Amino acid sequence: MKKLKIVALGGGTGLSTLLRGLKKYTDNLTALVNVADDGGSSGKLRSELGILPPGDIRNCLVALSEEESLMSKLFQHRFQTSGVLDGHSFGNLFLTAMSAISGGFYNAVANCAEVLAIRGRVLPITLSSVIMEAELKSGRQITGESNISNVYEKINEIILFPPNPPAAPEVLKVIRGADILIFGPGSLYTSVVVNFLVDGVVSAIKKSGAYKIYIANIMTQPGETTDYTLGDHIKALEKHSYKGILDCVLVNKSEISKKIADRYKRHGAKQVLIDKVDTKVVKANLFMDKFYARHDSSKLARAIMNIISSAKNVN
Amino acid sequence: MKKLKIVALGGGTGLSTLLRGLKKYTDNLTALVNVADDGGSSGKLRSELGILPPGDIRNCLVALSEEESLMSKLFQHRFQTSGVLDGHSFGNLFLTAMSAISGGFYNAVANCAEVLAIRGRVLPITLSSVIMEAELKSGRQITGESNISNVYEKINEIILFPPNPPAAPEVLKVIRGADILIFGPGSLYTSVVVNFLVDGVVSAIKKSGAYKIYIANIMTQPGETTDYTLGDHIKALEKHSYKGILDCVLVNKSEISKKIADRYKRHGAKQVLIDKVDTKVVKANLFMDKFYARHDSSKLARAIMNIISSAKNVN
Repeated sequence: MKKLKIVALGGGTGLSTLLRGLKKYTDNLTALVNVADDGGSSGKLRSELGILPPGDIRNCLVALSEEESLMSKLFQHRFQTSGVLDGHSFGNLFLTAMSAISGGFYNAVANCAEVLAIRGRVLPITLSSVIMEAELKSGRQITGESNISNVYEKINEIILFPPNPPAAPEVLKVIRGADILIFGPGSLYTSVVVNFLVDGVVSAIKKSGAYKIYIANIMTQPGETTDYTLGDHIKALEKHSYKGILDCVLVNKSEISKKIADRYKRHGAKQVLIDKVDTKVVKANLFMDKFYARHDSSKLARAIMNIISSAKNVN
Repeated sequence: MKKLKIVALGGGTGLSTLLRGLKKYTDNLTALVNVADDGGSSGKLRSELGILPPGDIRNCLVALSEEESLMSKLFQHRFQTSGVLDGHSFGNLFLTAMSAISGGFYNAVANCAEVLAIRGRVLPITLSSVIMEAELKSGRQITGESNISNVYEKINEIILFPPNPPAAPEVLKVIRGADILIFGPGSLYTSVVVNFLVDGVVSAIKKSGAYKIYIANIMTQPGETTDYTLGDHIKALEKHSYKGILDCVLVNKSEISKKIADRYKRHGAKQVLIDKVDTKVVKANLFMDKFYARHDSSKLARAIMNIISSAKNVN
């Protein structure tokens, strides 16, 4: 099992949660990370230091590190001095310095695995600077990741602009060579589906002999997936790739308490309804604790490893 | 052999050379580093950011790293921005950030091994801010490391001020638990002997059941060890510790070419004369190449491992 090539496609905190758990079970873990994130201090870094937004990349490196709490503190540290640099976290300075010595952002990210004590690799899925656009069911068009995640209307399709950005080096090879491909958990369109829009990714997924698992979100995401059922999530994934892309979907089986449900309801979120779908569904208790309806990284990883070991078509 | 606890005491480039080679042979390597280095940008860092001078510490971390060339470039990188930080190498910024999140310099250095991909540990030998003083044969007193290394008179004894600084946490335990203790190569007084002046170090060396090897310098060091023979080096080591401290001394056996000898002679250095000594002498070809009379890290490590495997009193 330690030798299995596990490749996770995603972004955001969902991907970090997944990696944090999986790093204990495999020696061959690669995260392919969406970099179409234009917000916050990462955007500032891009404009000031001229590199791609490393927010999710940085979080993945921390999640994969052997001493995660230490690495997390280090990457969040800010110097109390004057000048341009003290406006940035040490994690961003680290990636900036790595970019300078590595001849670019892509090599910098790949090189991080060489100098940091981390288990696995992190690769940006594309090196192109891309903007997300959404076409809504109503026909309206929405531009930009943050606008899409706050759309509060059904999304019909998302595209990237410029369309079909090339995959970063090795990305397609990594996908084709995977034993296990994992999509999610995370924002359906802006973290998961967006990766399918990179040129060659869907075809590489189709060609790979990997066992393909989708980790369903526990809760709907107000704005982006308001009222979405499990079936709606899978339909969106298939619409942007191909029908039957998934071998299995892993869902949380335990019902959240009324207290938590009420809290989420105030923010427009509710537990994703597990309706009838064509894909094989595996249920497990994936809750972190009694207070948040979030995935627990250990429970998630164990459930995935159970799926893998019982799946017949895994070598 | 991989399990042997090897502990190297020293400083400067000699220690880095040693670690670079040894990291391939053992999974249990600790460098105890002299931090009485008051010069250059490290001194600037101490005054500006309030931490101990990390020059040698930084070099040891680089030497122990799995991807040394990459780590070296990263640690040497300087940001091209304005402000206090861009006056420092990234390596110093790294140690400064680690200090801030680790609650001090000592923990920072220990924690580096947790977040960086390095094989082994680096510990400062003391956390006290100390100054070296030398009493010359003439009776004259000299203060400060850089003055001592340029004294051009025979040194009788060196001391630290304030005297007997306490060893850093774990240092004495590490020495007592060592299977192999290695002193040098490096500046006799300012990198090697200086470590004996830390409180408890000599007594811990004496108590340890370790096999103790001194790596003799290939060349004399003008100023600090002008005209010193091998016997003079060993006498200086014993004077600052105890007679019979060494089980073995490893010396370079090949004669340097006249061309190299002439070049060194212009700087006041010559090949250390291997005179008759009471200590067991092991000779090996330790040259890096034909142009410099420096230790080659691979040859040095191999020679040490040969000594270890043939030494009967090593477990």
